[in-house]
Amino acid sequence: MSKLQDLLRILDARVAATEDQVFNYTVPDLWNCFDYQGEELRKTPWGELVVNPYRFYRDAIRRFVEPRMGRVRTWGKPLSRHLDMEPGLEGGDWIRRATVYSMMVRTSTAWDHDRSGGLEDADLYGLRETGTFVKSIALLSLLHKMGVTCVYLLPISRFSLRDKKGELGSPYGVSSFFSLDPGLKDPMTGPDFTVEDEFRAFVEACHVLGMHVMIDLIPRTNSVDSELILEHPDWFYWIRHADLAGYKPPYVPGLGVQIRPRAEFLPVVYQSAEVRQHLAKFVENPGQAQPERWAELQAHLRADPGAAVMDEVQRRFGLTIAPAFSDQINDPQPAWNDVTFFRMYLDHPEASVPHLDREYAPYILFDVIKANLYQGKVRNEPLWELLAGIIPFYQTQFGIDGARIDMGHALPRELVERIIRGARHVDPHFCFIAEEMEIERAAVARELGYNMILGDGFLQEPRVLEFKTHHYMYEARNLPCPVYACGETHDTPRLAAREGGRPLARMLTILNLFMPNGVPFLNSGQEVYELQPMNTGLDCRPNEAYQLDPKDPYYGRLALFDRYALHYLNQGRWELPDQLAWVSAFRRDHIATFTRLENAVPLGFNSPRDPGIAFGFVEDALRGALVQEGGVFVVVANTDVHNPQYLTVHLDALRRASGNAARRGSQLFSTHGLARDVHDFDTHGNLSMSFQPGEVKLLRM
Amino acid sequence: MSKLQDLLRILDARVAATEDQVFNYTVPDLWNCFDYQGEELRKTPWGELVVNPYRFYRDAIRRFVEPRMGRVRTWGKPLSRHLDMEPGLEGGDWIRRATVYSMMVRTSTAWDHDRSGGLEDADLYGLRETGTFVKSIALLSLLHKMGVTCVYLLPISRFSLRDKKGELGSPYGVSSFFSLDPGLKDPMTGPDFTVEDEFRAFVEACHVLGMHVMIDLIPRTNSVDSELILEHPDWFYWIRHADLAGYKPPYVPGLGVQIRPRAEFLPVVYQSAEVRQHLAKFVENPGQAQPERWAELQAHLRADPGAAVMDEVQRRFGLTIAPAFSDQINDPQPAWNDVTFFRMYLDHPEASVPHLDREYAPYILFDVIKANLYQGKVRNEPLWELLAGIIPFYQTQFGIDGARIDMGHALPRELVERIIRGARHVDPHFCFIAEEMEIERAAVARELGYNMILGDGFLQEPRVLEFKTHHYMYEARNLPCPVYACGETHDTPRLAAREGGRPLARMLTILNLFMPNGVPFLNSGQEVYELQPMNTGLDCRPNEAYQLDPKDPYYGRLALFDRYALHYLNQGRWELPDQLAWVSAFRRDHIATFTRLENAVPLGFNSPRDPGIAFGFVEDALRGALVQEGGVFVVVANTDVHNPQYLTVHLDALRRASGNAARRGSQLFSTHGLARDVHDFDTHGNLSMSFQPGEVKLLRM
Repeated sequence: MSKLQDLLRILDARVAATEDQVFNYTVPDLWNCFDYQGEELRKTPWGELVVNPYRFYRDAIRRFVEPRMGRVRTWGKPLSRHLDMEPGLEGGDWIRRATVYSMMVRTSTAWDHDRSGGLEDADLYGLRETGTFVKSIALLSLLHKMGVTCVYLLPISRFSLRDKKGELGSPYGVSSFFSLDPGLKDPMTGPDFTVEDEFRAFVEACHVLGMHVMIDLIPRTNSVDSELILEHPDWFYWIRHADLAGYKPPYVPGLGVQIRPRAEFLPVVYQSAEVRQHLAKFVENPGQAQPERWAELQAHLRADPGAAVMDEVQRRFGLTIAPAFSDQINDPQPAWNDVTFFRMYLDHPEASVPHLDREYAPYILFDVIKANLYQGKVRNEPLWELLAGIIPFYQTQFGIDGARIDMGHALPRELVERIIRGARHVDPHFCFIAEEMEIERAAVARELGYNMILGDGFLQEPRVLEFKTHHYMYEARNLPCPVYACGETHDTPRLAAREGGRPLARMLTILNLFMPNGVPFLNSGQEVYELQPMNTGLDCRPNEAYQLDPKDPYYGRLALFDRYALHYLNQGRWELPDQLAWVSAFRRDHIATFTRLENAVPLGFNSPRDPGIAFGFVEDALRGALVQEGGVFVVVANTDVHNPQYLTVHLDALRRASGNAARRGSQLFSTHGLARDVHDFDTHGNLSMSFQPGEVKLLRM
Repeated sequence: MSKLQDLLRILDARVAATEDQVFNYTVPDLWNCFDYQGEELRKTPWGELVVNPYRFYRDAIRRFVEPRMGRVRTWGKPLSRHLDMEPGLEGGDWIRRATVYSMMVRTSTAWDHDRSGGLEDADLYGLRETGTFVKSIALLSLLHKMGVTCVYLLPISRFSLRDKKGELGSPYGVSSFFSLDPGLKDPMTGPDFTVEDEFRAFVEACHVLGMHVMIDLIPRTNSVDSELILEHPDWFYWIRHADLAGYKPPYVPGLGVQIRPRAEFLPVVYQSAEVRQHLAKFVENPGQAQPERWAELQAHLRADPGAAVMDEVQRRFGLTIAPAFSDQINDPQPAWNDVTFFRMYLDHPEASVPHLDREYAPYILFDVIKANLYQGKVRNEPLWELLAGIIPFYQTQFGIDGARIDMGHALPRELVERIIRGARHVDPHFCFIAEEMEIERAAVARELGYNMILGDGFLQEPRVLEFKTHHYMYEARNLPCPVYACGETHDTPRLAAREGGRPLARMLTILNLFMPNGVPFLNSGQEVYELQPMNTGLDCRPNEAYQLDPKDPYYGRLALFDRYALHYLNQGRWELPDQLAWVSAFRRDHIATFTRLENAVPLGFNSPRDPGIAFGFVEDALRGALVQEGGVFVVVANTDVHNPQYLTVHLDALRRASGNAARRGSQLFSTHGLARDVHDFDTHGNLSMSFQPGEVKLLRM
């Protein structure tokens, strides 16, 4: 039962039905890396293509995906069923060889197709202008060109529209784990094909193209408007509705700002007057306190499924769900009004009980939040069961291949293990990524069963002047598991908007393909030098949300909350895709060489303060063979993104490791120049070359 | 037989037939000054309207023109038939009260309606994207808003596509006087409605809106590919085809550059070696030299009307038509390859014959060109008859109200008189404008029967720093006929592209409404601060054709030759139209006051070097009544377009003329401020006010 084939049939019918219709519907030319040949196609000078949408998206499947299907007609199972897993890459470790593209479906294929000036839900042609799974299949041609092998999707579940942030609300405010965001449904397919069907078709298409699909699992927080509240009021924390306006993370004097809630701080925390006032706001959950009235409410609302649950709860009980806030003591962030925490335990944290001055209703506090550090005695077993069941649901229903666990660091260890175990039971090669930014905690994550951690590349890599880039890239190889080789995420500033601009973005985007122990990670929009962040969550400057020209229609808009389309028409939009295409293809042809850590040799320069990063790679098949010439690659970057530099790369370590003694080589690729022969060796046999600002070269010798 | 009604019916049918069709077809919002209400209308944030084209252009007639028709259903006759002509404005002098809008149909309503990046002949919807008469009817709503009462059309006749300049060729290379440019035909109306019908409908619409229609008559030059050549080879000058490559205006040593061919220069001219070589290139016309072979050619070509006449002539006779060139001796302009001159006389100029060293075939030279100064003895009577018949043809066929005579200054006086007489015979109020830039020659023009001359406002007005503006505006009132009050034409730089930019353009555009003895003249595009000239014929800088951003699709393009759309989306596009709307309406309400010369009083400042221009006007009805307060208007401009100024306007002359002794007044309008009371009089009773750069104020006192 291939949903991709169903989709193809539906689109075929639509194409036939619209043959005579004139469409002035545009897509960015970057979406057409499948050489669309529709007769009606017109190319505008600025990079938009005028197409019949049905034919365009149909042909993305017919011309690009279908020919790659081979004999397998149904690609809806996890990709591991279709691939032979190489030894050493079992158990989700395929991620070591992956190139990840992080996309937010709603945004990554958003486009003002009818050029009306807005991203409508129904444009002139009744079509959705924010992103959909169907449109994303066309985008896969671009991803495929760039060498992407894993698509990581920001949350796609139904989220709350109550007290929503921005124009559309944040997909991180999940209100239902088991249904998809109806805003991703594409009207092109009609009402009989569900958004779930469309997601299935999308996953199939990814699999055909050899791409794994990962989702974002959000088990720690939930929308304050969650559909779970009605049936499970005891899974949540409650306050009086009247106290909501004044609700905020309580201040703890004497501890400083942004402090992790270590055990020795608990006495101080619980002595804080603000903390005690905070605790006093919490009340018993209304289901337990007034069971009959709650049952009445349930009956009332079950009879009227469209009603606003929380309005009714607030009206009848004067109570509401307590918002979540940061797990760090004295974090300046306000409370997160759209989400709350799940009650992982039905009692207070064991370690905190001695500090309580009286009985309190279940409350949210730093210790409670960090359920990995502070457990109660009574597990919320039904909740855990539900949370552990989410991924198996997506595996069996949609065939996903991996997940990132959001705030996994604040989950009880046993729950994490249960989630991982459950998923691997369905697919032993299911990959888990820990939302762990502290690379020192890589070992813990690995031990829990994660395949890799996020790391904090987005924080380190852009800081070339402080040599944090160098430190991050050279040190990653010492970690017990891979980290993302990345300079931006959906939560951070864009590389092209950082000090260093496009030269920095280009340098890091290419160099990241070669960071030992790194998994290259592209953040949707990065490939077109997008300036505007999707969210201002991490490492952002005060003006971060205002990176665009004030006349830009998306000025001040954030993709995570607003209708937003990436700047696919940016000048130079093909630069990174074209470079990535070449470099990725080369890397894929030598994937073992570039991804097996034992082949990588970090290389130095004349001085540790020289603005360069260099790695040597011994060709995997020749390792230990001590060949005098050939079989060795060198990747060098000039990390000075403002000035040309003359750099001397010391090759001793590489020559020792490989036996290579060559005094000539070839420049296979450069971000700034053409392929050429290389004779630029000094008397010590070191590479001595000039570089453009931010230039990255790939050499063979 | 109203063609406007026919057009309306055709469009009604098209609207009905396209009810269900989705159109992503845009027009600039400036074209919609008739408050279009189509349900499908969408407004983009940048000023384009998405509309059903049939309904939009239909409603421009239905909602805007039709309600103004009154009981008259057929407005196809000259407007003078429909209006009572005021005493003093007979014989074409209605132009004294006109506000003229100069438009080039092909350009003024050109738009990339389907936003494909080009101005196609058939866009996505099969519609023409260069301008048409049908589309121009919608534009009339903008013109009407701005107070335009006379539409002057650059040539609309069929022109030659042979050796054409630019992408489309110049409409000044007329190849057929009696048929219209088929490129102006609008596919919207289908093949049964001709471009002639469309022009008729356009003229009717203009008349309904109280606008006269003038055309550009080009009787001196004709296309080198004219349809007249085949029947009248003797009306043209011939050279050997082999000499065409080296053909140029001959140089006359010892006379300097750009010299008018005065009689005393003739000996020098004819002694020039280059002139003699030039004369030697001319040959007898092939019709006379080889009458049988010419008759064969005629027979051959009559049998094959689509054939390229000149190719055949060149092939059979080795001859071609001699191109025209400037009438000035040693003008640096090269020959005008697309046009030639008509042979006004069948012999050489009488005055020049004594200087000829031998017999020459009919030739083009400075004296020959200036047929007003140098006549032969043998008039080319059939040609004159034909030329004199052109305007009556347009009058009876289309109902036009006036004409500018191109290069009238180089026509035999008798021919000009015959043309004028013929037109006035059909319509005694037909207006003639002389293409006369030398204002000293106004009296001659007036005597010939012209109603006004062009003047050289475009040359004088922009030069505020040199006080040429002041001189032009103050002196115009002394001329025996009106001149254009204008700062740009289709041949000159744009005001907004001049030193002074938009403040200069705004100041002159508004002030021109009040220049005594001036006829306000707007050059299409001027109202949106267009930067790119339509042609670089007059007063242009070397970079004049490159006023746009290099990324602009029309960078380096000239409307006279290329596909070109005006920048109707310019920021500030409504500024001048809105200001013109208010000022024009006010002026219309006091039209006698502002246009009768005897009401105007030039006003001075403290010093003749003060950067100001001011005129007082005595209310027409109160002239001679010596009213102490009220009944007087003052228009003042700060001609310093870079700095604010404090100006003192001396009112003595105005107070003497009117008896006005008021020490208070009202500012009715300012280009920069709001209406307010005015008490800014000094002890001498003079107006003493501050002005923004380029500000124009209209005061009543």
